[in-house]
Amino acid sequence: MAGRIFTRKQLIRHGHTDPVGIVYYPRYFEMINDTVEDFFREAMERPFGQMHTIEKVGVPTVQIAVEFQKPSYCDDMLDMGLVIERLGTSSATICVKALCGGEVRLSAILTIVQTNLETMKSIPFSGPMRVMLAEYVVDTGETEMI
Amino acid sequence: MAGRIFTRKQLIRHGHTDPVGIVYYPRYFEMINDTVEDFFREAMERPFGQMHTIEKVGVPTVQIAVEFQKPSYCDDMLDMGLVIERLGTSSATICVKALCGGEVRLSAILTIVQTNLETMKSIPFSGPMRVMLAEYVVDTGETEMI
Amino acid sequence: MAGRIFTRKQLIRHGHTDPVGIVYYPRYFEMINDTVEDFFREAMERPFGQMHTIEKVGVPTVQIAVEFQKPSYCDDMLDMGLVIERLGTSSATICVKALCGGEVRLSAILTIVQTNLETMKSIPFSGPMRVMLAEYVVDTGETEMI
Amino acid sequence: MAGRIFTRKQLIRHGHTDPVGIVYYPRYFEMINDTVEDFFREAMERPFGQMHTIEKVGVPTVQIAVEFQKPSYCDDMLDMGLVIERLGTSSATICVKALCGGEVRLSAILTIVQTNLETMKSIPFSGPMRVMLAEYVVDTGETEMI
Repeated sequence: MAGRIFTRKQLIRHGHTDPVGIVYYPRYFEMINDTVEDFFREAMERPFGQMHTIEKVGVPTVQIAVEFQKPSYCDDMLDMGLVIERLGTSSATICVKALCGGEVRLSAILTIVQTNLETMKSIPFSGPMRVMLAEYVVDTGETEMI
Repeated sequence: MAGRIFTRKQLIRHGHTDPVGIVYYPRYFEMINDTVEDFFREAMERPFGQMHTIEKVGVPTVQIAVEFQKPSYCDDMLDMGLVIERLGTSSATICVKALCGGEVRLSAILTIVQTNLETMKSIPFSGPMRVMLAEYVVDTGETEMI
Repeated sequence: MAGRIFTRKQLIRHGHTDPVGIVYYPRYFEMINDTVEDFFREAMERPFGQMHTIEKVGVPTVQIAVEFQKPSYCDDMLDMGLVIERLGTSSATICVKALCGGEVRLSAILTIVQTNLETMKSIPFSGPMRVMLAEYVVDTGETEMI
Repeated sequence: MAGRIFTRKQLIRHGHTDPVGIVYYPRYFEMINDTVEDFFREAMERPFGQMHTIEKVGVPTVQIAVEFQKPSYCDDMLDMGLVIERLGTSSATICVKALCGGEVRLSAILTIVQTNLETMKSIPFSGPMRVMLAEYVVDTGETEMI
């Protein structure tokens, strides 16, 4: 049963914006990473603090591509949506989009790799984890997020 | 009718923490500023974006003192509380505390000054604004927040 | 006369790193943006503050793709290098690489668009600006930075 | 032989500034912390990365008070100065000032405590470290930095 979308709200704050009045783009990467972090905590039941300090496992981002379609301003409330485009043995390619008032503000595609933080080697997702991740894999025909 | 406390939740995220595993302290100032920003948007009905771009008014922080009582870790959920210790003509001295599980993590006291952003001169709070601010002024005998 | 490389040093600081001990990746985007900012100030003689407030012109990033090849740690000194892969009428595609001890830490490719900040429309680079930018366009056969 | 001042330059960048065009104040705490970090690396010969991962020792800030005298703008070059106001057994009270063109932008006073990161207990400065720190203790009559 695939095709679910994980969503969260993201308020654009004063501290995110620059002298032009729009989001200073490195701050968007915090919002994208917060979305992945919330997805792991809320949907995968694996909070990052627990993963890093108890499991000694992380999911570092190894590559990311982002298109900034429209600027965002202070007080905008963004709808962040996350789906999985490709689920590998120990990696996943994730799409994150930010919308506001029906307008796409940014589209991101990133690859995370589950990694043993002591050896820094990749490790496969467990069976139960794979089942949970699979729910968010996009259905055929819906893969063109960017 | 004074004595109200403005509150918000603050999740400690991966990106807030350092190699020691605790909050990198400059990030706490973002959390304090976000609390002031939420107070203005939610309790004072003056979102910062609107204030800055339409009213051309800001409330810059001119001084701040913070005591970090206990460290915070990734996944901690902080209860941020805000009260006004002293309400001046165009300034306010604000206390912000962060608690987690009944433990005080930090206590901050800061002074903001309502400022015309074109002249950079202070301007008095309006009558209605003063009434709204006054609700959050601490009652006698409760002023020792730090 | 093309083929120049703009370079700057970037120290990895405590505040850039996370509980795993490696750079929290959104901070890399600040380092990439700082490299573009230094390139404009030092090589193009157009500091961002002056551009934004006097010229009312900016060079927002409209898309960026980054590959994180190896992790960076606190106290690492990175060599950031910038070249222009493609110079358009009002846009430029820029490659930024970060190296440390001969090892590539990240490779970024980003597109900036010179923009009138009042209308938010693109505006062509001036003749003199184009001449200055052209010096940093990669020579034929060296375009595969990523 | 006391009375030395540790100094470093700090460029105000686009990413430090807000829609008002001035430094977003939480970013100043990064600059203050970077000054302390550079002081430890350059003057005390103890880079933070090495301290944290090899020595398992840190110098967390337990309290800080800052007065923001004048705003700073993008492209300003600040002169950051650091002296020690009081040297304790395992703690130090440090003054940091930022100046630009002879104008004081901010004055900070902060207390750091040398801490064993495994037990989170304070540990005394070593003899040689104390000698090095003592060089930066302000001479009598110069203690009123703020």
